Amino acid sequence: MPNILVSNDDGIFAPGLRTLAEAMLALGDAWVVAPKDNQSASGHRKTMHRPLRATPVGQVFSPRIKAYAVDGAPSDCVALALMGLVEEDIDIVVAGVNSGPNLGQDVTYSGTVSVTLEAAIFNLPAVAFSLDSRHPDADYRPTVDFLQSITRQVLANGLPHHTILNVNFPAIPRKEIRGVRITQQGRRVYRDVLTSRTDPFGQPYYWIAGAEPEGDIETEGTDIWAIYRGFVSVTPIHLDLTRHEFMPALRNWNWDTTPELSTSEDTP
Amino acid sequence: MPNILVSNDDGIFAPGLRTLAEAMLALGDAWVVAPKDNQSASGHRKTMHRPLRATPVGQVFSPRIKAYAVDGAPSDCVALALMGLVEEDIDIVVAGVNSGPNLGQDVTYSGTVSVTLEAAIFNLPAVAFSLDSRHPDADYRPTVDFLQSITRQVLANGLPHHTILNVNFPAIPRKEIRGVRITQQGRRVYRDVLTSRTDPFGQPYYWIAGAEPEGDIETEGTDIWAIYRGFVSVTPIHLDLTRHEFMPALRNWNWDTTPELSTSEDTP
Repeated sequence: MPNILVSNDDGIFAPGLRTLAEAMLALGDAWVVAPKDNQSASGHRKTMHRPLRATPVGQVFSPRIKAYAVDGAPSDCVALALMGLVEEDIDIVVAGVNSGPNLGQDVTYSGTVSVTLEAAIFNLPAVAFSLDSRHPDADYRPTVDFLQSITRQVLANGLPHHTILNVNFPAIPRKEIRGVRITQQGRRVYRDVLTSRTDPFGQPYYWIAGAEPEGDIETEGTDIWAIYRGFVSVTPIHLDLTRHEFMPALRNWNWDTTPELSTSEDTP
Repeated sequence: MPNILVSNDDGIFAPGLRTLAEAMLALGDAWVVAPKDNQSASGHRKTMHRPLRATPVGQVFSPRIKAYAVDGAPSDCVALALMGLVEEDIDIVVAGVNSGPNLGQDVTYSGTVSVTLEAAIFNLPAVAFSLDSRHPDADYRPTVDFLQSITRQVLANGLPHHTILNVNFPAIPRKEIRGVRITQQGRRVYRDVLTSRTDPFGQPYYWIAGAEPEGDIETEGTDIWAIYRGFVSVTPIHLDLTRHEFMPALRNWNWDTTPELSTSEDTP
């Protein structure tokens, strides 16, 4: 029976977290260590400048699940759990189900994905799950058998070193879901706008706000393409962000400028 | 004359920020928009749940530099600047010089790198600079001609779409620096430990802390390998985290499990 750690970035009371945690009981034992507050777009963080609190949480989940609410970022929850808050050895880390998609470049901001990146640094397999709806009454039930079958497969097959899966669900009824597609990150176009206002004391303040980013739905094989067409997207993500194919061109730049400067310094 | 935006994650008063901003005056006009406080390990964040303040800062920098301190994350500073706080069109974004290296998996946490990821989302070229020393009296002067020559080359050659450069400097005198190496991300081993304490009211609290992570200095061609040997490391980083080479194997997993479940639902 695997030991499964569940976390998220929407916070301990998010309905998608409960759906995921309780779905995992069909596979093994589950622990929840999640932020006490919403930490959306929190990025991959490490809280080192202040101590963290972990409050045991009852009643939110099935009595079979031991749960903690943490006053830190999603990645802090994972570190805290794996470094000793959970006394059992964890076999896999799952994140979500996020309220809203994590597609394209979203993954660099995503608190949901940061849960899995932290797990990968601890050399554990991990899966991030997100639903393409931010509606407070969104129905997470259609995701349940995918949550279970994808997690089962990761447990059975393992994942390459420092690699995680980023899974997105279309927000449609279960029987309309057309299956799973292995995808790559698509491209989103953010339409944030800066709103500048003046406070009652005459000082300016700023809101970064905008509509839901638009995705490029036409490029076949991307996560955005798949979700738009009613598929579950499964994107393998890795911790190595090196753009390897650009390295040869970069080596041809004029790096000699710096040795020249060095020479002029050596012979004043 | 290019317009250069300078930011960091160590905050507006960091000595490395001043070194970088004033070095840029040899290339063009410079603006500084940086966090008012230290935001190390802040990750790539977007502050949307509260407004941001940007306070004009005088005296810290050369009078030729217009500077603002922002009560947000490094990526917020970039968004705020590019969305209108800086009225001129920015040509390039530079980050740092960070107090401490950003090597290997550090880049997923790094506030310094998050500055450049945000710039890339705005389709601007960007470079992150870090010094391999956290000492408060570390000498940033040996970095200056590299800051200028690398930024000049990025302005001259451009960078591929959604790609940035992550540059690390060894903390050694200028004449001991052996030149530039184009590198890939190495692997660091984090040695964080969880310290559990009890507060005066009998409740537990936790510190995540640890020694400086150790790097794998033996794998040739990595950033860690280069720094250890006295080279400046230049690693191209991209926003596409997809592990493309794992996609064929992943497609061979048993994805049929889910259509079967779907069938059983269709015929109750």
